[in-house]
Amino acid sequence: MSAIDPLVQANREFAKSFTGGLPGTPARKVAVVTCMDCRIDPVRALGVTVGDANVIRNAGGLVVEDTLRSLAISQRKLGTTAIMIIQHTRCGLSTYDDAEFREELAAETGITPPWGPRPFGAQEDNIRAALAQIHSSPFLLYKEDVRGFIFDVDTGLLTEVTDEPAA
Amino acid sequence: MSAIDPLVQANREFAKSFTGGLPGTPARKVAVVTCMDCRIDPVRALGVTVGDANVIRNAGGLVVEDTLRSLAISQRKLGTTAIMIIQHTRCGLSTYDDAEFREELAAETGITPPWGPRPFGAQEDNIRAALAQIHSSPFLLYKEDVRGFIFDVDTGLLTEVTDEPAA
Repeated sequence: MSAIDPLVQANREFAKSFTGGLPGTPARKVAVVTCMDCRIDPVRALGVTVGDANVIRNAGGLVVEDTLRSLAISQRKLGTTAIMIIQHTRCGLSTYDDAEFREELAAETGITPPWGPRPFGAQEDNIRAALAQIHSSPFLLYKEDVRGFIFDVDTGLLTEVTDEPAA
Repeated sequence: MSAIDPLVQANREFAKSFTGGLPGTPARKVAVVTCMDCRIDPVRALGVTVGDANVIRNAGGLVVEDTLRSLAISQRKLGTTAIMIIQHTRCGLSTYDDAEFREELAAETGITPPWGPRPFGAQEDNIRAALAQIHSSPFLLYKEDVRGFIFDVDTGLLTEVTDEPAA
């Protein structure tokens, strides 16, 4: 029994009421970067719908090299002009040390992970680091509407993080 | 006027009926890797709900280094045991040449993109390449329930791609 079978079965039902024919250029011109966390349903949480936004997700909602590749394509090939970074409360990455995780993997497999360290600290600092990555990338065309948020997995609410730390 | 404002406003409404308190360990033990494409709403298309699955997304739904980082965390820290790769019809990546895109970026910025080439060919070949990346990673614990699909953005239906090319 594959854990995937029920999802494929559910897809048959889903397709019965699916509306196709949309273009791949997001109608709201927004790209969202967020965590892979199972408690985040970005489409619903942002009140958008199919056709509205590019959604990029990885462990932590980090802005890494491949995130910048996706954002460059989103802006240059698909016409988005705004970027929303959404990390969240109770993130798995805050429950262990990334350096230790990398050492565990290296010790177990004999191979150092090729993806480089991904330090993860205080929530607002992580968001500011992600915003800084966006702003320093030479490959993005639009950086005026770039904003960072923390999603509360218990209330469902977004809180914006401003560029500057509170005094 | 920020394109993000209406999404933040919609989130206030969303939160009114949000149910929190869920753990970060996906109930269905599935991790989904798919494209950032605006026409894909993986939660709905797979009949899952909040709390069910990790969702990793990038341009193309590719298995790159950072995808393997996310999957390693998903399996080792969050208890998933199955991986579903979902690419799709009419993908933006199939409409231009990745090597040319990289050359354009390098010519415009004077900086070669650090993310390396991401060749993208025939759909079934791309899925098989992604499955091969999963199977060759030393960092993943569970590889028995790993399956690849193409999502049709016009019908909403998934079609499975088997490991072996048709004879």
